[in-house]
Amino acid sequence: MTDLSSHPTLVASTWLAEFSTALTSGDIDAAVALFEPDSYWRDLVAFTWNIRTQEGPESIRAMLNARLADTRPSAFAIEGEATEAGGIVDAWFTFETAVARGRGHVRVRGGKAWTLLTTMTELKGFEERTGERRVKGAEHGVQIDRKTWQERREEEAAALGVTEQPYVVIVGGGQGGIALGARLRRLGVPAVIVEKNARPGDSWRKRYKSLCLHDPVWYDHLPYLPFPDHWPVFSPKDKIADWLEMYTKVMELNYWGSTTAKKAHFDESAQEWQVVVERDGREIVLRPRQLVFALGVSGYPNVPKIAGAERFEGEQHHSSQHPGPAAYRGKKCVVLGSNNSAFDICAALWEHGADVTMIQRSSTHIAPSDTLMELALGGLYSEAAVKAGVTTDKADLIFASIPYKIMAPMQVPVYEEMKKRDADLYARLEKAGFMLDFGPDGSGLFMKYLRRGSGYYIDVGAAELVANGSVKLRSGVTIERINPRSVTLSDGSELPADLIVYATGYGSMNGWLADLISPQVADKVGKVWGLGSDTAKDPGPWEGELRNMWKPTQVENLWFHGGNLHQSRHYSQFLALQLKARMEGIPTPVYERAPSYHER
Amino acid sequence: MTDLSSHPTLVASTWLAEFSTALTSGDIDAAVALFEPDSYWRDLVAFTWNIRTQEGPESIRAMLNARLADTRPSAFAIEGEATEAGGIVDAWFTFETAVARGRGHVRVRGGKAWTLLTTMTELKGFEERTGERRVKGAEHGVQIDRKTWQERREEEAAALGVTEQPYVVIVGGGQGGIALGARLRRLGVPAVIVEKNARPGDSWRKRYKSLCLHDPVWYDHLPYLPFPDHWPVFSPKDKIADWLEMYTKVMELNYWGSTTAKKAHFDESAQEWQVVVERDGREIVLRPRQLVFALGVSGYPNVPKIAGAERFEGEQHHSSQHPGPAAYRGKKCVVLGSNNSAFDICAALWEHGADVTMIQRSSTHIAPSDTLMELALGGLYSEAAVKAGVTTDKADLIFASIPYKIMAPMQVPVYEEMKKRDADLYARLEKAGFMLDFGPDGSGLFMKYLRRGSGYYIDVGAAELVANGSVKLRSGVTIERINPRSVTLSDGSELPADLIVYATGYGSMNGWLADLISPQVADKVGKVWGLGSDTAKDPGPWEGELRNMWKPTQVENLWFHGGNLHQSRHYSQFLALQLKARMEGIPTPVYERAPSYHER
Repeated sequence: MTDLSSHPTLVASTWLAEFSTALTSGDIDAAVALFEPDSYWRDLVAFTWNIRTQEGPESIRAMLNARLADTRPSAFAIEGEATEAGGIVDAWFTFETAVARGRGHVRVRGGKAWTLLTTMTELKGFEERTGERRVKGAEHGVQIDRKTWQERREEEAAALGVTEQPYVVIVGGGQGGIALGARLRRLGVPAVIVEKNARPGDSWRKRYKSLCLHDPVWYDHLPYLPFPDHWPVFSPKDKIADWLEMYTKVMELNYWGSTTAKKAHFDESAQEWQVVVERDGREIVLRPRQLVFALGVSGYPNVPKIAGAERFEGEQHHSSQHPGPAAYRGKKCVVLGSNNSAFDICAALWEHGADVTMIQRSSTHIAPSDTLMELALGGLYSEAAVKAGVTTDKADLIFASIPYKIMAPMQVPVYEEMKKRDADLYARLEKAGFMLDFGPDGSGLFMKYLRRGSGYYIDVGAAELVANGSVKLRSGVTIERINPRSVTLSDGSELPADLIVYATGYGSMNGWLADLISPQVADKVGKVWGLGSDTAKDPGPWEGELRNMWKPTQVENLWFHGGNLHQSRHYSQFLALQLKARMEGIPTPVYERAPSYHER
Repeated sequence: MTDLSSHPTLVASTWLAEFSTALTSGDIDAAVALFEPDSYWRDLVAFTWNIRTQEGPESIRAMLNARLADTRPSAFAIEGEATEAGGIVDAWFTFETAVARGRGHVRVRGGKAWTLLTTMTELKGFEERTGERRVKGAEHGVQIDRKTWQERREEEAAALGVTEQPYVVIVGGGQGGIALGARLRRLGVPAVIVEKNARPGDSWRKRYKSLCLHDPVWYDHLPYLPFPDHWPVFSPKDKIADWLEMYTKVMELNYWGSTTAKKAHFDESAQEWQVVVERDGREIVLRPRQLVFALGVSGYPNVPKIAGAERFEGEQHHSSQHPGPAAYRGKKCVVLGSNNSAFDICAALWEHGADVTMIQRSSTHIAPSDTLMELALGGLYSEAAVKAGVTTDKADLIFASIPYKIMAPMQVPVYEEMKKRDADLYARLEKAGFMLDFGPDGSGLFMKYLRRGSGYYIDVGAAELVANGSVKLRSGVTIERINPRSVTLSDGSELPADLIVYATGYGSMNGWLADLISPQVADKVGKVWGLGSDTAKDPGPWEGELRNMWKPTQVENLWFHGGNLHQSRHYSQFLALQLKARMEGIPTPVYERAPSYHER
């Protein structure tokens, strides 16, 4: 009896059945009683039409009070077998709401839920036309004046934005815009992607020559069309660029290259945006209902204002403009900054015979790539995970099932282990004067990425160059003054310089907003990215989700999309469903729309 | 006891264990005794370095006498669970040889093998770099003067065929050349694909406007990179063309577009081909060891010589040159032929307001697409098959496991059922005067394709136009004479004509050989395609495999590749392994190289 009742699938099924009964009968007390005091319910659109984590039973109660009647959840069913480890039962399930189908995940501990994830997978009646629902392609039978696929594609491309308006305009045609474009295409939402570069992938092609993805292939698939199984672990920039270009083509995205968004404002009377773009030199006004910014995690390049910069006789540029090492053999190069771009650029310059000095202003988290892949990503995104049946989709959901509140402490042991494994490298880096950190609470790389999007280097070899002195290091200083042929550091010393690279990062994403729409709208939206952890560059209050990302903002019909390839893939699903629901007139009452705490 | 011993997996395991023991101990008598009198062993490269079916125990004995010692098969192991239906046990297994790994399939009946399939999947030590073996992409660590992926690709592309010679030249860059090119790329065999059109996919783009694939999507995947699951069932020509183009790019094939092969001969002293090509107007001599013709199933267009053609004042062209219907509204169009292209072109012309007459010279097999998909392909290539776990790879092997000798009788019931289902259409077609057949032995479409590559129409709607008289039909006649504004038929009647389309098919594939190499070499190779069934356009003697396709020919280092997308996908594997083995110097003694029976 004991044996049977402790079987993980039975434990999970029992919990889910009670939860289902409580919800379908409207018994919110009973539902809340199924959560332990330290519990979390993360919802991706299914219940809240928002991306929200409810922390603790009372927060869950409030959400159910507001949303249960509308949502009408039903048809909860365990998917596959549950598993158990360390007293925690892990289970997958499917469910429905009044308007959608969903997939969920629960961790049950002592009969109560510790974490619950609910996600929307498709809207009823608006399913993607895949598998058995796919279009036939050839229209069999007889059709007078039949049009071919090519003719219809050309007509659509010619009409969209001219005689017919897209429902969505996506500003930014990198991986984010492309992934969202593909989701919208499959959902039948007319969309135009506006991109200043000529070709999809150019935002990668134009970066410094030695750039490769720092994330591994299993983490980087785009929606619907995974990389073939020989794809390199770390895609070189031009290769990922080619992939994005072909993906855009075969997914039939309406991609406007060589097009710059100039100005946008929301026309309240028409309830639509007016987006002025310049396409191949011609001004066009697009009038979409929804406007999505997909310009990456970063805003404009930060170029510090340094006295004397205008009189520098060498070359100086931001890392985003750095062309690669070829022209700098034998030159004296000063790289300001100590994060990913700084290390990559220093290494490539040194490898091509330049004399390189890195200026480290503040401490940096160094995460050796091999260790990081194994300890931080290996369980979900690796060849071993694939072999263990962890598909990309499943990995994304497992990842999503960890509430941000408990993610930081869960990450600490990874970096404790990293400190041990790579102790020799760290010791030599410190001996060379490098200032190391592992995040304010030791939670390492991923939390730094979520909180501030900066502060680290995924080491693929360049740390060694700093440790062994090949790349010279000046740390704890900054550039105080630029002279015609040198820089003066804040400790008063002087470095000769032919080239200065500002690897100094980027501003806030909503800098774009201020310019394209207005400073008022940018301030109304507030800070984009960050969790509200009250650590460096991530001011509180605690929000528990990435601010303004993939969810309704304080400005109606205005959205942010982006992040790394993993986030672009996974969250594009939820943003696309929110947009589709609005297009189809499905009510989308947003629960707990996040306030705006920080102006630009 | 009886129950247990009749369990399918046990039956199969027992057979395989005995077979393995017989082979590994060199006991050929024992091995042969495991086959029933009416038995077949089809081998794709693993035992024979050929594509051969041994029919009957004595043929199997002869093969083993010749090949067992060399092959050294071992490590036979049942894969998954066997199944049983109608007294026949079906099982999958893996095995190894001295130099390779393989996968096999057996059908056991009354304890003996009825059919056996053995296929080579990879060469030991030369495995494709996939999964855990994939390249890293980023080369971590420090490398002086490091080259990027892009630089290495550009250097390779610039050097190949100029300072470095490819091991293989593939003449023809359609689906066949592209699929083989991808296999060779993953195996590390340097190859150049030579294609007269500018872009991959142009051989589809340039066909008549209404063309869609007649085969469904599940049958059409290319190797390694399946279509996403929204891909249309029947790809429109421009869409499949775009896919081929992006595939060529992301698989990093060395594809020479706008390049025409002019002349080739084998230099005996250097043991290499000299292939003269014109690339963008410049003549280049390629010197590969191996030369592959991948120009499709067809040779040059057949344009019948008809008296008076030179004085025709309208427009006349072969179906391969037909531009589509746009220019022919209100025009009198005569289409000579009654196969796929003829029907497609007639329908598009009629749909666009032309007056169309089809001239049917001999009987045609009409296979309604829906019925064909369900009855002939549905078990292996359909959404239902995918759901039942029949992956493309598995479907290909099941397909390959049916020896051609017994394929024709197995196909007959499909077409008996088709006759019943579509009886109404057939009756109305016959009433309209259309001459129907279902193949010489009632075995229908696929056998016609394998035997002669012609003689059928996969009906996607145009048969109705003939049945109801929208497209006029003249059957049992041909065009005897062409007049300035009309054609005179063989029954003496005259038809006015503004346009004549010759939907009259193509010559033998080795017409290309005669022109590019020499008539002597073409004759030495002999007929390409066909099984030797001794039916129309497929003269005997029986060969039991497609003549000269994907296997050694009578001319060393000269190969043929092609067919539909299914064949291009599946057989490229075996041709690529044969080429790789030769490049690496692995002995490849060819068993029963097929003689040449028929000159061009």
